[in-house]
Amino acid sequence: MIDLPTIQTINSQLDKSIQQHIDSKTKPIGSLGKIEAVAAQLARIQQSLAPQADSCELLLFAGDHGAAQSGVSAYPSDVTRQMVLNFLTGGAAACVFSRMNEVELKIIDAGVAGEAIEDANLVSRRIAGGTRNFIFEPAMTPDQMMSAFDAGCHLGRNARADVVGFGEMGIGNTSSAAMLAHKTKQLPLLDIIGRGTGLSDAELNSKRDLLMQASQRTDDRLTVEQSLCEYGGFEIVMMTGAMFGAASKRKPLLIDGYIATAAAMCAVNLDPAIRAYCIFTHHSAEMGHQLMMRELGAEGLLDLQLRLGEGTGALLAWPLVKCAAAMMRDMASFAGAEVNGRI
Amino acid sequence: MIDLPTIQTINSQLDKSIQQHIDSKTKPIGSLGKIEAVAAQLARIQQSLAPQADSCELLLFAGDHGAAQSGVSAYPSDVTRQMVLNFLTGGAAACVFSRMNEVELKIIDAGVAGEAIEDANLVSRRIAGGTRNFIFEPAMTPDQMMSAFDAGCHLGRNARADVVGFGEMGIGNTSSAAMLAHKTKQLPLLDIIGRGTGLSDAELNSKRDLLMQASQRTDDRLTVEQSLCEYGGFEIVMMTGAMFGAASKRKPLLIDGYIATAAAMCAVNLDPAIRAYCIFTHHSAEMGHQLMMRELGAEGLLDLQLRLGEGTGALLAWPLVKCAAAMMRDMASFAGAEVNGRI
Repeated sequence: MIDLPTIQTINSQLDKSIQQHIDSKTKPIGSLGKIEAVAAQLARIQQSLAPQADSCELLLFAGDHGAAQSGVSAYPSDVTRQMVLNFLTGGAAACVFSRMNEVELKIIDAGVAGEAIEDANLVSRRIAGGTRNFIFEPAMTPDQMMSAFDAGCHLGRNARADVVGFGEMGIGNTSSAAMLAHKTKQLPLLDIIGRGTGLSDAELNSKRDLLMQASQRTDDRLTVEQSLCEYGGFEIVMMTGAMFGAASKRKPLLIDGYIATAAAMCAVNLDPAIRAYCIFTHHSAEMGHQLMMRELGAEGLLDLQLRLGEGTGALLAWPLVKCAAAMMRDMASFAGAEVNGRI
Repeated sequence: MIDLPTIQTINSQLDKSIQQHIDSKTKPIGSLGKIEAVAAQLARIQQSLAPQADSCELLLFAGDHGAAQSGVSAYPSDVTRQMVLNFLTGGAAACVFSRMNEVELKIIDAGVAGEAIEDANLVSRRIAGGTRNFIFEPAMTPDQMMSAFDAGCHLGRNARADVVGFGEMGIGNTSSAAMLAHKTKQLPLLDIIGRGTGLSDAELNSKRDLLMQASQRTDDRLTVEQSLCEYGGFEIVMMTGAMFGAASKRKPLLIDGYIATAAAMCAVNLDPAIRAYCIFTHHSAEMGHQLMMRELGAEGLLDLQLRLGEGTGALLAWPLVKCAAAMMRDMASFAGAEVNGRI
């Protein structure tokens, strides 16, 4: 079984003071909408009326999926590796957005197919050169799953930034994420399988058939550990571990789209206390993401019709989170600024 | 009549190249959703595949409304002046967000009630100490309207940043904006009158009665110039002028919420060519904003349930606009990064 770090349950003692503090700011009550909700969440997580969210680190986990060999994606498995190289040379969307928003981007090889990539900027935590094909057999052994989780946990725990974001790259991983949501939360399989990188109708149909087949291999209801072993990806397991590591240090977690939300779902399933640390950064255009969000009682900060992954949603939302903390800390109160309240 | 600067109609010649350029980037086609749409718009405005959006200036226009004396707002008129002082000392939400997102904030006194505020950082373009009460009489003279427009035009034209945002402060100005939308575009008055700074049911009802009364003073259909004279605010007229000034220099315009959208509506009415320069930054929580957006065929980038004004929506959206331009310029192509395309 996974060795879970302790996640502190967020104390509600400060909640009233937090709301009063927000309402004292020079603006009509509630007029900053979701920014106020994020500000309150940051304050609750840090148990402070002056939450710090000045720096952000994005952990981007890459891994390959044996199931890609069966044709669940529009792109070949090679693309995972090619994109890792693209991350390392700074050309991917995640790199561009990280630079613009001053986020430290860490690329982690959780299990990319082929030989290990040699690069000083790559964090190598390879479990294996990709998972086995979960259409026919378990994706990984319990040992591999626990190793991936522990490696992630360690990375999350050692993140130095105030806020930690989570992204991924892995051809085939929307299939893995769908299976995890289906087996751990019984979300209807056909409702959560989307077009991923952009499948045609025929390709989507084939993806559905393959995942139905994969589903029949195991019981309808699996534990998170079982689901991760049967259908997980190394990048997803490691990300789940990293969420635990960061939350154990009381860090707010920026959850990206479909895959990261599936990982968050696994995390919350393992320990509901982690839910309060999750800031869901956006609504993905990938079908089924909405169902996962509903299951988690989550609302995304952005709705930009993104379906790229790589943590791009988290990266785009980061400035809003930073602004929310600054609002809480730096904005004047009616009393302080000598501004009249309502008539 | 207003002396309108020439707004260049955006050439569609580059449109195909722009789309091809976006589609060549290392991501599934369309997977950056609205960010791609903004990137394409920036490219079209600048007629360049490498649009520049590195700096942003927010013009924040403040002005008072005589109609506030009749009780259309939950806050007293004094608050406009107090908030201007709050802007100048850096305590308002707009200041906090400007600092966090490195936007240059310019506070413009377009016509705040009372004596002129003396402050080296205030841009004084006061037309008068507030408008007349438009419930009973025209808000301003044609001369005042044209002076306000020209002053705004000059400010917009002289903005040095790559992108210009527009915000406002003025107790009573949701009423003014509603009247403008109603008289110029015949949007149903009762559907576009919202709670502004947070009216109770009784107060909202009274606001509706007052605006119905104000509406009966004039013809159902007015030109933009007539509407601005009858119901405008100095800050709204000046903002409309500033949109023209900035667009005449081919600058992308970041349109904030309810009031700024009403100003943009006036601008588009005066010259439809300006529409292509407008980036609508968010959907406001103020009732009626959606109707204006529909009228303009506009979709907001953010939907954060904001209803504060001050340009806060534009300020929060600015990092996304910056990222969109950077994506266009800096992201690698499939060919350049040697990443495989679809199978």
